[in-house]
Amino acid sequence: MLVVMKHGASAAEIDAVVSVIEEMGYQARPMPGAQRTAVGLVGNDGRVDSSRISALSGVAQVIHVTQPYKQVSREWRPENTVVTIAPGVDVGGKEVVIMAGPCSVETEEQIVLAAHQVKAAGAACLRGGAFKPRSSPYSFQGLGEVGLKYLATARKETGLAIVTEAMDEQGAELVAEYADCIQIGARNMQNYSLLKFVGTLGKPVLLKRGLAATINDLLLSAEYVLASGNKDVILCERGVRTFDPATRNMFDLTAIPIVQQMSHLPIVADPSHGTGIRDLVTPMARAAVAAGADGILVEVHPNPERALSDGAQSLYPDQFAELVGELRTISAAIGRTLTPAPRTATVAAG
Amino acid sequence: MLVVMKHGASAAEIDAVVSVIEEMGYQARPMPGAQRTAVGLVGNDGRVDSSRISALSGVAQVIHVTQPYKQVSREWRPENTVVTIAPGVDVGGKEVVIMAGPCSVETEEQIVLAAHQVKAAGAACLRGGAFKPRSSPYSFQGLGEVGLKYLATARKETGLAIVTEAMDEQGAELVAEYADCIQIGARNMQNYSLLKFVGTLGKPVLLKRGLAATINDLLLSAEYVLASGNKDVILCERGVRTFDPATRNMFDLTAIPIVQQMSHLPIVADPSHGTGIRDLVTPMARAAVAAGADGILVEVHPNPERALSDGAQSLYPDQFAELVGELRTISAAIGRTLTPAPRTATVAAG
Amino acid sequence: MLVVMKHGASAAEIDAVVSVIEEMGYQARPMPGAQRTAVGLVGNDGRVDSSRISALSGVAQVIHVTQPYKQVSREWRPENTVVTIAPGVDVGGKEVVIMAGPCSVETEEQIVLAAHQVKAAGAACLRGGAFKPRSSPYSFQGLGEVGLKYLATARKETGLAIVTEAMDEQGAELVAEYADCIQIGARNMQNYSLLKFVGTLGKPVLLKRGLAATINDLLLSAEYVLASGNKDVILCERGVRTFDPATRNMFDLTAIPIVQQMSHLPIVADPSHGTGIRDLVTPMARAAVAAGADGILVEVHPNPERALSDGAQSLYPDQFAELVGELRTISAAIGRTLTPAPRTATVAAG
Amino acid sequence: MLVVMKHGASAAEIDAVVSVIEEMGYQARPMPGAQRTAVGLVGNDGRVDSSRISALSGVAQVIHVTQPYKQVSREWRPENTVVTIAPGVDVGGKEVVIMAGPCSVETEEQIVLAAHQVKAAGAACLRGGAFKPRSSPYSFQGLGEVGLKYLATARKETGLAIVTEAMDEQGAELVAEYADCIQIGARNMQNYSLLKFVGTLGKPVLLKRGLAATINDLLLSAEYVLASGNKDVILCERGVRTFDPATRNMFDLTAIPIVQQMSHLPIVADPSHGTGIRDLVTPMARAAVAAGADGILVEVHPNPERALSDGAQSLYPDQFAELVGELRTISAAIGRTLTPAPRTATVAAG
Repeated sequence: MLVVMKHGASAAEIDAVVSVIEEMGYQARPMPGAQRTAVGLVGNDGRVDSSRISALSGVAQVIHVTQPYKQVSREWRPENTVVTIAPGVDVGGKEVVIMAGPCSVETEEQIVLAAHQVKAAGAACLRGGAFKPRSSPYSFQGLGEVGLKYLATARKETGLAIVTEAMDEQGAELVAEYADCIQIGARNMQNYSLLKFVGTLGKPVLLKRGLAATINDLLLSAEYVLASGNKDVILCERGVRTFDPATRNMFDLTAIPIVQQMSHLPIVADPSHGTGIRDLVTPMARAAVAAGADGILVEVHPNPERALSDGAQSLYPDQFAELVGELRTISAAIGRTLTPAPRTATVAAG
Repeated sequence: MLVVMKHGASAAEIDAVVSVIEEMGYQARPMPGAQRTAVGLVGNDGRVDSSRISALSGVAQVIHVTQPYKQVSREWRPENTVVTIAPGVDVGGKEVVIMAGPCSVETEEQIVLAAHQVKAAGAACLRGGAFKPRSSPYSFQGLGEVGLKYLATARKETGLAIVTEAMDEQGAELVAEYADCIQIGARNMQNYSLLKFVGTLGKPVLLKRGLAATINDLLLSAEYVLASGNKDVILCERGVRTFDPATRNMFDLTAIPIVQQMSHLPIVADPSHGTGIRDLVTPMARAAVAAGADGILVEVHPNPERALSDGAQSLYPDQFAELVGELRTISAAIGRTLTPAPRTATVAAG
Repeated sequence: MLVVMKHGASAAEIDAVVSVIEEMGYQARPMPGAQRTAVGLVGNDGRVDSSRISALSGVAQVIHVTQPYKQVSREWRPENTVVTIAPGVDVGGKEVVIMAGPCSVETEEQIVLAAHQVKAAGAACLRGGAFKPRSSPYSFQGLGEVGLKYLATARKETGLAIVTEAMDEQGAELVAEYADCIQIGARNMQNYSLLKFVGTLGKPVLLKRGLAATINDLLLSAEYVLASGNKDVILCERGVRTFDPATRNMFDLTAIPIVQQMSHLPIVADPSHGTGIRDLVTPMARAAVAAGADGILVEVHPNPERALSDGAQSLYPDQFAELVGELRTISAAIGRTLTPAPRTATVAAG
Repeated sequence: MLVVMKHGASAAEIDAVVSVIEEMGYQARPMPGAQRTAVGLVGNDGRVDSSRISALSGVAQVIHVTQPYKQVSREWRPENTVVTIAPGVDVGGKEVVIMAGPCSVETEEQIVLAAHQVKAAGAACLRGGAFKPRSSPYSFQGLGEVGLKYLATARKETGLAIVTEAMDEQGAELVAEYADCIQIGARNMQNYSLLKFVGTLGKPVLLKRGLAATINDLLLSAEYVLASGNKDVILCERGVRTFDPATRNMFDLTAIPIVQQMSHLPIVADPSHGTGIRDLVTPMARAAVAAGADGILVEVHPNPERALSDGAQSLYPDQFAELVGELRTISAAIGRTLTPAPRTATVAAG
């Protein structure tokens, strides 16, 4: 940590900063400059709370050198974490995992049909929301537990692993019961009570980046889950808010190689929410895999014009099948392969 | 709602849009243009879900004319809502309410001292966090229920009304028990489960704008609380995220007159979080009142250098007293007055 | 300057950084940390180009402690710069200067009428564009030199000082000939060739903040003008681009006290472009003065419905007169006064 | 164009809007709604200036349906524009063009060496700055005309086409004389005087997106060049400003397929400025090609640690060679090829 003093800070002010640093149990190293003096704090273990120092008289700025997160960092664990969602579905290894399905679970027929379609096209996981965070209280909010039961049926019929969102503690317990991976949505990325709770449920967590979250914020939110005892966290880039209304969000694919440098956790990308427009999903899914994503989360609906939510960004099943073919070639170009769709349904194995 | 067709959309595609609109129970009014055709949807009551239409072939864009929120709008209720936090503390009327106190409740002595100090300077409400949403799981997370008890003590001793944050349902129940107004923080602004829950607790809610929330989003989140049966919502501008690292957030004071046009709900401003730097709090608090804010939320700490959180943005008690004097003059310049500090403590009245 | 090494940087990499710093003529001070080593560069005079160091192997980040600008900084000149636009019109002193007028000069009658109206209401300067930067090549681009002549006529008739924009070198020479202050618009804030050129013309420059310019960028652009020999620069906050479409721009009033801390240059605010909507101009003009702006730039049109540009954000003359009254009271509340309108026209004095 | 009236707008206000539309020569079509009335303007040819209407009493909002640009739109010209920079170097066709070289031209030896290196690796164009827009007036500003001469030498020796930036009219004339393609940088994207001027020089223009430019703004700036008579414009995505300091800019690859939908102009991507960090250039260059970019602009320096600017984002020549190999495979995966490096130097052909 570096404490930059104001130009013209007095010797007494500099001494006060040194004293507080030493009182906190660290070493202080003053560095006089031509314009202003800086004081280095040596020995920071990542837990120094800078607020006390920022508040001191004569301090212009406190600059953090040490990252505030620990367990999620590459420095804590140099090798990649591989999160196993279901047998054969490993996120963070050499394989790229395709997760696909409708925005919302609408009926049993719809989700089972969608599951068969995305499996036929090459997906390894089924996505679909039973709890839907909608900006208006008057929009369709999802089927709740009934939707989770339909997802479980779809898994039984296809063998696809299930990823679905939870919005609160009660919902998270249900998702943990019926599904394979608990998704935490962008709006709840800094719902720390929920993050702590899902850290205790013993299921993989897919954590989406918030609309205004820096990559640092995303990693800090993941740290909450790890600090609660759950190492199986998959990060997800899904677009952030910027000034350009051309798309719903700005899809920040550079986050993928940055996260891979800073953290050992796997990261997937969601080009459907990342762009919000069907025609953009295919090129951006290709770009995400080329950038090194460990997986792709794509909205596919048997009948987008009849979708209860997000129809405009859902692919038609045949568009999706074509996309999977392209992703297979691009994966090969960078030395990876796609996780194969499940051979047979779980039920058939029984 | 206006459905803009792509250039070159076929007559059949336009007909399909008309059919779907009519099937949904509204009237369709096609408007051919030189470049492209648009189809107006007439009779929208604010509940039309555009996703079905967006997904249709040939549709370029769906433009919403009707606002998606209802009960929070000026059109629903033309006159201002006045939220009474405690007897004599009305937010949204002619008086400007000063809410002040430390970032966190640290000890009973600290919060009681702070309460006396801010009351002496002219505040009508005491703020202070018992549940602290911190970006790092390793930072001080607040005293929890113990902190709420200390706040209750401070109220007993000074008569100040208490505003404090809740982060989850359990915490909200406790806050409702001990305090006068439940604050929902920026990170939980779109935690819809929590919004629905606090709508049922029968206490005023102070809802802070999220870091990437548009004013529309803020109003939609407030709509969740009203839709759950609670009309007593105070909105709060506290800065949003932008590209300039000069301050922690960009304090969007224009949100104040915009909200006052669009909604009947009161809006206050928090220059402490809105700027993050002590020296900026005073000018921006003055600006907020000049812009028409119904109140100000300011961090004041008896001893900022010893604060467990946010010391760098907390005012010294004497700075705060000086600020209140300036706010009094500016309020008068625009025809308002400050809510007076409570005359005597509740306990003294007993 | 602080060079932060990657975790696991080798001793040889750290030595290489030390060598390069010493080769550049500065002292290097390594600071080993628990997670990573940092190397301080001591003696930076603000001219160190960090690119060589950033490119070295093992370097994670280079953090600048010294500001990259010099002459614009408070450290270079502690007392406020007061820019005299015309006799009696001083920006940066105790007086708050009101600059007002239509977006574009349209006809001689229009600008002369507008000049009389804003003078009667209390303005000290007339604004109005002869060269208009328009995002579409097909929009009205201004009257050019003819417009400047009309502005000169308005000055002769009213005695108001003239502020008007230049978009290129040829235009800047004309503006310098006819007007009192050369405005550089937001889109040209980083047109360095133009900044260097206007630095040589011997007229005050009003430099508007770019749409995505940090406060640091704004100060660096001003540095270009000062480095070309012109000390008379007035900065102007006029809103930046963010994610919220509620207004054309987000009006960043906190920039005012920040600039006043970092620089000795005066700063004014433009609530018309800062908000883009007439009903928001009045509260935000009040807020700007309360925040400490040295002046206000406001669009006023004799007949906004007939304006060739920006009619929707132009005040009616009577709204403007009422606003000036409020600004007078708010100025008084913070110990300032408004610059009086010129007593008589220049011509009358002749 | 759709004019949305305020809730409660009077019949007289609606009539006034209708009258003004008709007075402007268009048809008005009022659409009463449950909450508010909207008035459609029929027959807009893209030149309607909405400011008059926005300024009318009772108007809440004016929504543009027709795009404000014309010649750059797909509707104006359905087939792709292919810009020929030099014989065999066509941008916008089936081939993906690799443009590479150092940030700045530093010496004749440096640029000639760089040219040989990037040609050997597979580039078809050489980039390198002779005029450098630097945020500080004290940073290296480029060699000017001397630098252009060195670029011409490099072209003579390698046969590579030259792309280099101009910052003002005088510089643009020189660039047109020595180079093959005039680059307009991000900071000058809305320097309309310069855009009009380069439209008259008869050389292809590479127009970079500004830091806060929407895709719409970028297209409107291109429209300025086309409106001046030059159809040979190549657009360039190079990152925009957002809230995340993790990278210098946020690289908005989704802009590529969006531009390709809206416009017939080719678009290339610059992952060096788009990310600012060497280790991110390779994955993001791959992603750009996968997203459909018509070319890539990459900084490569013979000796990045000695670069006078942007060393930290410049690739080493061998990294670049490896990248070109990967881009070749990814291009093949989506049915494209790379433009081959020139067979022999121009001089050898003479």
